Amino acid sequence: MNKKMLIGLSFGAGYGSQPGAWRMPWVNPTSFADFDIMVKQAQTAERGKLHFLFLPDGFGTLVDIESVPPMTSLDVMMTLAAVARETKHIGLLATGSTTFNEPYNLARQFKALDVMSHGRAGWNAITSSTNDAAANYGVTIPSSEERYGRAHEAILLIQALWGSWGRNAWIHDQASGKFANKDQILPINLQGKFVGARGPLYIPPSEQGQPIIVHAGGSPNAHQLGGRFADVVIGSAFTIEDARSQRQAFRDAAEGYGRNPDDIKFFAGLMTTITKDRRTALDRRILLTEKEIPQRVAYLQSMLRIPLSIEELGRPLSELQLSNARPSPYDPRSAHALKIAKEGWSLRDIIAHGVIDYHPVIVGSGIEAADHMQAWFEAEAADGFWISTDVYADGIDAFVDEVVPILQERGLFHKEYEGRTLRENLGIQDQYGIDPRIVSTQKY
Amino acid sequence: MNKKMLIGLSFGAGYGSQPGAWRMPWVNPTSFADFDIMVKQAQTAERGKLHFLFLPDGFGTLVDIESVPPMTSLDVMMTLAAVARETKHIGLLATGSTTFNEPYNLARQFKALDVMSHGRAGWNAITSSTNDAAANYGVTIPSSEERYGRAHEAILLIQALWGSWGRNAWIHDQASGKFANKDQILPINLQGKFVGARGPLYIPPSEQGQPIIVHAGGSPNAHQLGGRFADVVIGSAFTIEDARSQRQAFRDAAEGYGRNPDDIKFFAGLMTTITKDRRTALDRRILLTEKEIPQRVAYLQSMLRIPLSIEELGRPLSELQLSNARPSPYDPRSAHALKIAKEGWSLRDIIAHGVIDYHPVIVGSGIEAADHMQAWFEAEAADGFWISTDVYADGIDAFVDEVVPILQERGLFHKEYEGRTLRENLGIQDQYGIDPRIVSTQKY
Repeated sequence: MNKKMLIGLSFGAGYGSQPGAWRMPWVNPTSFADFDIMVKQAQTAERGKLHFLFLPDGFGTLVDIESVPPMTSLDVMMTLAAVARETKHIGLLATGSTTFNEPYNLARQFKALDVMSHGRAGWNAITSSTNDAAANYGVTIPSSEERYGRAHEAILLIQALWGSWGRNAWIHDQASGKFANKDQILPINLQGKFVGARGPLYIPPSEQGQPIIVHAGGSPNAHQLGGRFADVVIGSAFTIEDARSQRQAFRDAAEGYGRNPDDIKFFAGLMTTITKDRRTALDRRILLTEKEIPQRVAYLQSMLRIPLSIEELGRPLSELQLSNARPSPYDPRSAHALKIAKEGWSLRDIIAHGVIDYHPVIVGSGIEAADHMQAWFEAEAADGFWISTDVYADGIDAFVDEVVPILQERGLFHKEYEGRTLRENLGIQDQYGIDPRIVSTQKY
Repeated sequence: MNKKMLIGLSFGAGYGSQPGAWRMPWVNPTSFADFDIMVKQAQTAERGKLHFLFLPDGFGTLVDIESVPPMTSLDVMMTLAAVARETKHIGLLATGSTTFNEPYNLARQFKALDVMSHGRAGWNAITSSTNDAAANYGVTIPSSEERYGRAHEAILLIQALWGSWGRNAWIHDQASGKFANKDQILPINLQGKFVGARGPLYIPPSEQGQPIIVHAGGSPNAHQLGGRFADVVIGSAFTIEDARSQRQAFRDAAEGYGRNPDDIKFFAGLMTTITKDRRTALDRRILLTEKEIPQRVAYLQSMLRIPLSIEELGRPLSELQLSNARPSPYDPRSAHALKIAKEGWSLRDIIAHGVIDYHPVIVGSGIEAADHMQAWFEAEAADGFWISTDVYADGIDAFVDEVVPILQERGLFHKEYEGRTLRENLGIQDQYGIDPRIVSTQKY
């Protein structure tokens, strides 16, 4: 098997995926506003040959600022502009909502980033879905129909703008004074139900032509939007079966739009706390989450449907508790939580295994992470993984130094960036402007 | 007189203010898309201790791409993010239209740039005014009333968002686990006629608190908007008298809003072709504009109201032509054009003096530029100047090496950046959030 897995890194607000990351004594507590630190973290990921940084967004969401930092960077585009200038190979993926941005502005910034990074940009085209997000624009959230309708139009419009500066239009011949072929730089004149633009966009192609398209979501609407446009899907699944079925849904949707299903790469989430062994990793996790433990005990009760007491954190669950436990059908993580409990870990350690986190969690050695990734990859549950490390300050290094070399030894991960551009490194086919297959299957 | 003049640099699409700049043999013809070159140019301006780079916008305007590059950078914010990381002192001013951007998005990007640059950002808050700009957003241009109404609301809203993270709110105390004082990071809940937002904006203060406000324009609406909010006005005037009257109009408007008129700094435009002497500078200008000469001869005819022939480019105007010439009252540059013609320059040289450019033009030695600036500054026609050099590749160096030292010797320009931040270097008073004087004079 020659195919290699792809790996991206979740890159949020400078601290790490765990709410307690900012409190760790080895972390600079002002990382949230420190671009030097963000650049250094990006360079670490590049040292590990990771394919991309993925910047989630949702910046306007109200957080419990008293104890928890915002989870996303001050501004995703400004962060990536900084990183672009001080890295050479790693891909730069930012989330940009189609709901609350003007398409022309998105088109311009992402293509400028693509030129600036010499062909390493990707746009995670999402819809915003909460009134919390809408409130920062003085409105309430539009209907799902309107949000997805606008998203489909916006992506097509933006790709049309990207292609409006023809690939070979730029002559810049000083002797003749011909700057560009004007008949290859043309208005697009697209006007849809929700968005429109005249164009052209005066930005020449980057080394990869134009940014790749990313989508993050799991609903039927997401399958359609991602299947139609996405080169990369940022997924979320707790089990191999779930991931396989999600991946298939996106592949099926892609085929429905006339695309080759191999052109859409499904990335499963993975959270990591990597140390020399399980015990050390659990202790690190306990330190990271000590303030959250009471609320997690309460939540674990509802997952296992048995009473649990904060007084018993140091003890494993009793035989009676284990035999009474019934995994909640409302939370897909419950069965895994019970499995960990049955291994005899203390209540504190069960929680420290990350059984209530947003993705599968590896709390242990690099081999454990590599085994997980190999199993999922070989089961065709994912084309790659996006990794959320617990604490960026040393967690990115831990992944790069302890997990990557094992995957490389096993022949599962590249040892060097193969191409010049993100598109080449991910094995995504060339596209400039709108995919003609999409246009032939759907109207604007 | 101890007061020093302020100097900014117009920083467009990488080539220079003259349409022929990109064609010059010593210019890299791909500068438009080359961030290495833009960063190097910015560093040259910083070597000259210039106060700021000013990035105009109007990117979507249709241009004659066959022979002329777009005049503004691929994306003003991405360009400044690149420059921010590789300079230390120079201010970073970008134009951001209040008409076609969501205020929350503008607030976020500019404050992020301010944090990233350690307090060197400024926002040129303008209204878009053409259907050409509107077309890229799928709309026609709103009425002047709506555009300025929205602009006033947007600036207040954005400043409120900037101040919504209280100045001393960020505790980040790892030992206690207190990240921030939540009662100092609060929603703003502003809803106007045109724009609204809940907030807060999760960005802590920069070293200068928040970006300064810039305005560019000369209409009565501009006087009101600038007078109410602007720390810096990017002006445009052909004569000392005109500049004095514009500066006064902004100062009067500022007073009307309860501000100190010295808190608004008026910058006059100046275009430069600096070489060792006038003849060399004229020859450089002729090379730069040779393709534009026929149309400029035609235009000069209408300014002087006499027939001129492209056949007579090498000869001065005749006695008869000069005595028949009547400066057009419709173009404020006409009297100056006639004055140059009367000095006996050839028709080609008259045009090479820049008599049809958008600002006063110095085509000559550094002393000529310094004399012009000194005269205007001492006449209180301007607090400073924004310089448009003919060709960035060597024109910024020429200004820095030939003009700046003369101004410094004369005690008119600083020899070193005095402060850490743009606000300190420009002598602009502290402000965080909305100016309380503004709030007391006007409702939102």
